[in-house]
Amino acid sequence: MSTITRHEPSAIYSLVVEANGFVFTAGIVASRLDADVKGQTEQILAEIDRLLVLCGTDRSRIVTANLYLADIRTREAVNEAWKPWTGGKDLPARTAIEAKLADPRMLVEIGVVAAK
Amino acid sequence: MSTITRHEPSAIYSLVVEANGFVFTAGIVASRLDADVKGQTEQILAEIDRLLVLCGTDRSRIVTANLYLADIRTREAVNEAWKPWTGGKDLPARTAIEAKLADPRMLVEIGVVAAK
Amino acid sequence: MSTITRHEPSAIYSLVVEANGFVFTAGIVASRLDADVKGQTEQILAEIDRLLVLCGTDRSRIVTANLYLADIRTREAVNEAWKPWTGGKDLPARTAIEAKLADPRMLVEIGVVAAK
Repeated sequence: MSTITRHEPSAIYSLVVEANGFVFTAGIVASRLDADVKGQTEQILAEIDRLLVLCGTDRSRIVTANLYLADIRTREAVNEAWKPWTGGKDLPARTAIEAKLADPRMLVEIGVVAAK
Repeated sequence: MSTITRHEPSAIYSLVVEANGFVFTAGIVASRLDADVKGQTEQILAEIDRLLVLCGTDRSRIVTANLYLADIRTREAVNEAWKPWTGGKDLPARTAIEAKLADPRMLVEIGVVAAK
Repeated sequence: MSTITRHEPSAIYSLVVEANGFVFTAGIVASRLDADVKGQTEQILAEIDRLLVLCGTDRSRIVTANLYLADIRTREAVNEAWKPWTGGKDLPARTAIEAKLADPRMLVEIGVVAAK
């Protein structure tokens, strides 16, 4: 069997899991939910940075990203945080859909898969 | 080319597929749709157990799980089935969002990726 | 570090990314949005064909597919395009949920993971 490494488990799920050369983050939401969509996205992307580095990889090695927006019309505000974060290079495949999230104050949730 | 193994195909999709050391389940729904959210979740998790074992892996090796809830406010009822199933260990990364499912009686749908 | 190959980046994301023996497409939508659900699905599946071949794989090697439908009740119309495309063989695991998409004219969005 291959080795699986799990990081920062809560009672319900792990924040990030490593297996077979890939890193899977949980769907990450902002911790300060009074922020607007762009601000929440910035918080999420900073947390994703932290989780990827914890696993020995980084944002330049994300292969796919799933974005869930409480209101799909805020897509441009999400991209205002996304674009400078990616710097327009090493861009992952991406899916962005509207979905109601666990708390009505959560405006965006992002999960990624990265290669090690 | 690597080997791909597909199990239990319907006319539309396979219930679980193995490739490159990973196992991908379809989005699994309950078969007895008269059950409540917790009961449907228990049915789904039992079916996921069956599919993983079929592929030579098991629930302790799930790396990521996607949960789709017909009503996100039932998240705690889903977790009442999820928590004893995981036993609080070997926890996968997880994303849970609200989504309308194929049949209005379907209250939850879960798909997982496991490592072999 | 493993090699990651990214194809056809826009300003925001890559249309398809290769890593560790897998190929990840972005969530693909139709380019001609005046088409009906079946027609949009056919466009999307043709685009997925193109992206997979670009990566040295093909539709017979898809391991999992995520379908997002603007109206879940159009699932049968999506399947009218899906079934002849798959030919009922080499069927991936699949998840299909309802989700509001980026443009109200978008009726369906599909992302897949294939093995090389």
